[in-house]
Amino acid sequence: MEGSQYLLLDAGSGGMASHRLIQTMFARAFSNPILDRMDDAALVHDLSGPLAMSTDSYTVTPLFFPGGSIGTLAIHGTVNDVAMLGAKPRYLSCAFILEEGLALADLESVVQDMGRAAKEAQVAIVTGDTKVVPKGGCDSIFITTTGIGSLLVSDPPSGHNARVGDSILVSGSIGDHGMCILASREALPFETNVRSDSAPLAAMLEPVLTQCSVRVLRDPTRGGVATTLKEIALQSNVSIRLQEEALPIHESVRAGCDCLGLDPLYLANEGKCLCFVPKEEEERALRLLRESPYGREACVIGCVDHAGDGRVVLETKIGGERQLGMLEGAQLPRIC
Amino acid sequence: MEGSQYLLLDAGSGGMASHRLIQTMFARAFSNPILDRMDDAALVHDLSGPLAMSTDSYTVTPLFFPGGSIGTLAIHGTVNDVAMLGAKPRYLSCAFILEEGLALADLESVVQDMGRAAKEAQVAIVTGDTKVVPKGGCDSIFITTTGIGSLLVSDPPSGHNARVGDSILVSGSIGDHGMCILASREALPFETNVRSDSAPLAAMLEPVLTQCSVRVLRDPTRGGVATTLKEIALQSNVSIRLQEEALPIHESVRAGCDCLGLDPLYLANEGKCLCFVPKEEEERALRLLRESPYGREACVIGCVDHAGDGRVVLETKIGGERQLGMLEGAQLPRIC
Repeated sequence: MEGSQYLLLDAGSGGMASHRLIQTMFARAFSNPILDRMDDAALVHDLSGPLAMSTDSYTVTPLFFPGGSIGTLAIHGTVNDVAMLGAKPRYLSCAFILEEGLALADLESVVQDMGRAAKEAQVAIVTGDTKVVPKGGCDSIFITTTGIGSLLVSDPPSGHNARVGDSILVSGSIGDHGMCILASREALPFETNVRSDSAPLAAMLEPVLTQCSVRVLRDPTRGGVATTLKEIALQSNVSIRLQEEALPIHESVRAGCDCLGLDPLYLANEGKCLCFVPKEEEERALRLLRESPYGREACVIGCVDHAGDGRVVLETKIGGERQLGMLEGAQLPRIC
Repeated sequence: MEGSQYLLLDAGSGGMASHRLIQTMFARAFSNPILDRMDDAALVHDLSGPLAMSTDSYTVTPLFFPGGSIGTLAIHGTVNDVAMLGAKPRYLSCAFILEEGLALADLESVVQDMGRAAKEAQVAIVTGDTKVVPKGGCDSIFITTTGIGSLLVSDPPSGHNARVGDSILVSGSIGDHGMCILASREALPFETNVRSDSAPLAAMLEPVLTQCSVRVLRDPTRGGVATTLKEIALQSNVSIRLQEEALPIHESVRAGCDCLGLDPLYLANEGKCLCFVPKEEEERALRLLRESPYGREACVIGCVDHAGDGRVVLETKIGGERQLGMLEGAQLPRIC
């Protein structure tokens, strides 16, 4: 193992080697005036009013997959969670846990992906941390990002705000990320070209938030659309009805699910959101979503039916009804 | 392995099992009105003005050690980093990466430690995330916390602000955390009763920040006092002189270092800070630090000598001089 190609343990010592890793890799890819001061904490001057704060750890395997990497995911996932509260994500912190012996070229690719994704999402990575654990102490790269941003609206969306009569929109096709990771990991008995939908959604959502009365906004990541809707139904104490026929599912995802016996409603998404608006604002919200490249396939998939029982009911294509619960068991570990 | 005693993989699925783990363990220990809403992000209403933001991952082994645990460390380390920028830490996010098969009793102890430490430090854990990786994918528990808080002063301390003539104070004895972890891990050839100094420093620092002109404030964690001072000397482009005789080092740490050939100046601290103030404010700063239980042993250890060369010079007890650089190599992995 050469020091120049693989990560050595002393890069996490807080000493000279840490300093070099930070200067040559992170500072370069993430450079901005706040980060560049390299103090113990970042100083952020221009946030005002109520703030949204969210954090996620990313442990996805493989590190690189069609449509993204752990680096893009670590940016998109966290900015999306901040956006779901009706806020404009502005600043991120970023903490790496790295395995001794990691190929530095892989780390460099991930870091470059993060830098580019942060730029597209218009957020600045302002502070960070790097730990290196001995070989076998973790699996290559774990990243934890935390995002903050100011609210765009005075009455922010929340899982508690669904009301009877609300229309439920999804911003695009479902199950792509989950199926992509599955296909990247397992030797599937069929060809698939499915790509992760990992994408930053804040810019798409800003006009919707400011021009519509968005009641609930959630990104259906782990647990998928069904688990997320079940949580909302319970938090708001309402019943939700979905039309199976209305669900936007790419043919490759549908084929993969049929073959593997999976339900796309429980597959993870990383670039989609569920949006509850009053019925009369449905068309406006759809139009605004579709103006974004990430919302072209936005559509209505159901409505809030009545108050009081926390149920999610799927009307199937053949006219039956199926109750949806939360995901039971682990459909796929390390999906994000 | 019973489901009731050990962590199962599906606790990280985002589904039913995740929900149960969050409700029975995290929500109970960390409960506060912001966290309890359980939205994708936390909504924080009462921060104003410039903010400090800091993040750290904690991978310390063993999980429990004399004077603390990975849980106390995950709170203290991050609130201290926010405090070092002259801010009052208020809100934390908390992301867990957990290993399948982890004893739930250990997780519960860590989570309880975090809840108590957050309470003492007067911060609220407002949002979080939990990932579970398959057995062998990580080593038991990794925690990443991110803290935010408003600045207490308009001209915050920074590593760039050291000036010629400044006195350099340390808030207490050095090397305790590093020696404690070392002693917990290795079979040492001597008895030791050294405890980690892990402690929250914000309350101790608030009067110093508001009543003195604090130029630089840093907690000498990984890399120790020497590495931290070297960074400051380089950032501020000054030369620093330390008096070896003035360094507060507990006898047990000194004995351990002598025996193992280690230098306490390079051992990690988790409840200490270095504070640069103008010479004429030295006495006032010392008095204010000593009013806190965490600052009773505060003392002056050196001064900023002259401008321009980024050197840190130790005046030894026998009248010699030694130049201190940054830590080279990894003195001890997974110290925090």
